[in-house]
Amino acid sequence: MSKTVTIAIDAMGGDHGPYVVVPAALGLLKAHQNVALVLVGDQETLYAELHRRGVDVGERLAVQHASQKVEMHEPPSQALRTKKDSSMRVAIDLVKQGRAQASISAGNTGALMAIARYVLKTLPGIDRPAIMTAMPSMIGHTHVLDLGANVDCTAEHLLQFALMSSVLVSAVDDNEAPTVGLLNIGQEEIKGNNQVKRAARLLANSSLNYVGYVEGDDIFKGSADIVICDGFVGNVALKTTEGVAKLISHFLREEYRRNLFTRLIALASRPVLQAYREKIDPRYYNGASLVGLRGIVVKSHGGADEIAFTNSIRVAIREVEKDIPQRISNRLQSLLVERPAVV
Amino acid sequence: MSKTVTIAIDAMGGDHGPYVVVPAALGLLKAHQNVALVLVGDQETLYAELHRRGVDVGERLAVQHASQKVEMHEPPSQALRTKKDSSMRVAIDLVKQGRAQASISAGNTGALMAIARYVLKTLPGIDRPAIMTAMPSMIGHTHVLDLGANVDCTAEHLLQFALMSSVLVSAVDDNEAPTVGLLNIGQEEIKGNNQVKRAARLLANSSLNYVGYVEGDDIFKGSADIVICDGFVGNVALKTTEGVAKLISHFLREEYRRNLFTRLIALASRPVLQAYREKIDPRYYNGASLVGLRGIVVKSHGGADEIAFTNSIRVAIREVEKDIPQRISNRLQSLLVERPAVV
Repeated sequence: MSKTVTIAIDAMGGDHGPYVVVPAALGLLKAHQNVALVLVGDQETLYAELHRRGVDVGERLAVQHASQKVEMHEPPSQALRTKKDSSMRVAIDLVKQGRAQASISAGNTGALMAIARYVLKTLPGIDRPAIMTAMPSMIGHTHVLDLGANVDCTAEHLLQFALMSSVLVSAVDDNEAPTVGLLNIGQEEIKGNNQVKRAARLLANSSLNYVGYVEGDDIFKGSADIVICDGFVGNVALKTTEGVAKLISHFLREEYRRNLFTRLIALASRPVLQAYREKIDPRYYNGASLVGLRGIVVKSHGGADEIAFTNSIRVAIREVEKDIPQRISNRLQSLLVERPAVV
Repeated sequence: MSKTVTIAIDAMGGDHGPYVVVPAALGLLKAHQNVALVLVGDQETLYAELHRRGVDVGERLAVQHASQKVEMHEPPSQALRTKKDSSMRVAIDLVKQGRAQASISAGNTGALMAIARYVLKTLPGIDRPAIMTAMPSMIGHTHVLDLGANVDCTAEHLLQFALMSSVLVSAVDDNEAPTVGLLNIGQEEIKGNNQVKRAARLLANSSLNYVGYVEGDDIFKGSADIVICDGFVGNVALKTTEGVAKLISHFLREEYRRNLFTRLIALASRPVLQAYREKIDPRYYNGASLVGLRGIVVKSHGGADEIAFTNSIRVAIREVEKDIPQRISNRLQSLLVERPAVV
């Protein structure tokens, strides 16, 4: 039997707070016998929510009180300074104290990054943590980072992102040497800005499985297992992806609702549309990893429903089981020993 | 009757050259009685292609010989230096000489930009031309620029893009004061890089209908008529959009082909899927404008088919009919008169 994995969950974060977190947690506990969860937040609310569902705390389910909550649009520095007893902060503190092996929040991304970085610190050799998620591709999925933690990255930062993510992906996807692509634009000569050109040279000289430049559409073709970019570009790519997917769903729904005949077709098409949705449904891709920290922190989408939030807990469990921060640290150490001058 | 619009077409550009350009041109001439087209390229090939279709040149259809062709991956500076008799260059020369009011090419974007800029020059007050296209949104379409002509833009360049596109969109969409959004990422505090923050201040102080920051998904929600970004980010957003749309089509097709039952559903769904496709089909959005030049140049997608290429000719016609370069120039002049210190 595998040893118990304990995850601290910010139960007050996101658009729905405990009303999504609690049922997701309960469902997950049933499916994963080796997992224990700590729900962090206002204890009165949390106990009420548990009792309403006829559940009590026990060996694998605990409540940890936190008197504050980080607001969705609160500036990160303010959250860091004034919200020391927030559900987000306390969940990360539990990881720092070794009482949990990972924490999850659907709250304010900027605040989560700031607090996680302040409390847990970055791994030696890593300047900045990055946010990484999987996106669907024709042949499986592609991991993309950074998705918004860092704007104005240097080439060295991009190299660090590639190193960290290669370690993570090789462990969680059982992929010995994941391929790494550097996001760029297609025009010749004016190709790339200086930061990207320099990063390409660093990647080509690294021990990573670097496959060269990729473009935005390569994320979905599966041209590389990992796509590296700065946080500004990555965030635009992520939001664009969400926007296109929603637009397409909107138009499909509109067409299927046009008249009685199209409504009947929609009914008949249900299994097809359902199967299709499961392949690209963002809920099944929910759970972005904050990589580069001395601890595991996963960010759920703020609007996550029960299915989506459950998936983010699974992302955290996988990273705990594979001991990701330690693996990244070991890899960085071995690189520093091999080539002292270069990370 | 409106006066004749003459468009010079690089008939050798793109993946299919004359085999797409010639039928598109002939179809367009039938639909638009006030348009004349000049097909530029290898005259032997072009005459053969016309004769094969039982057509001859005449008052509204001419062939202009060009002995060279710019290759798809040729460096722009090389194309500029060594391809002075290329179909792309000659088509743009015709605009410069006043023998055509616009030119279109499906060839190498970097070369097209370099040649257009060299031959036609930028408008007074404009440092760099930009590439702009329309993308579908829930409420119509959104114009996005720059899409890859400029990486590493300054805030002043972004302001110029906003000015030029506002003039263009107000004319072609009959929209007095189109709304302008600045593409950014959502995280608070770390919001935006310095260039974006500075551009926001310039836009807020301009006479444009600036509505503030927008994110990647806002392009498809239609939150602003125009979305401004630097060419690197814009190109990633464009390619990402193409990639997601292709992935979704791929999965839908896969699901509909699963078995006999799903194939029957696909058959029944045809009118629905067709109507839906027409709304987001990139062919109906083909034709990116090179704005900021003293002449009209439209870039077609390299892989354009007849429908798509025809659409790019329509984009050029609209810009000629609305006299876009002159309008942009007038607007810039009036701004210079009003506030001599600021563009």
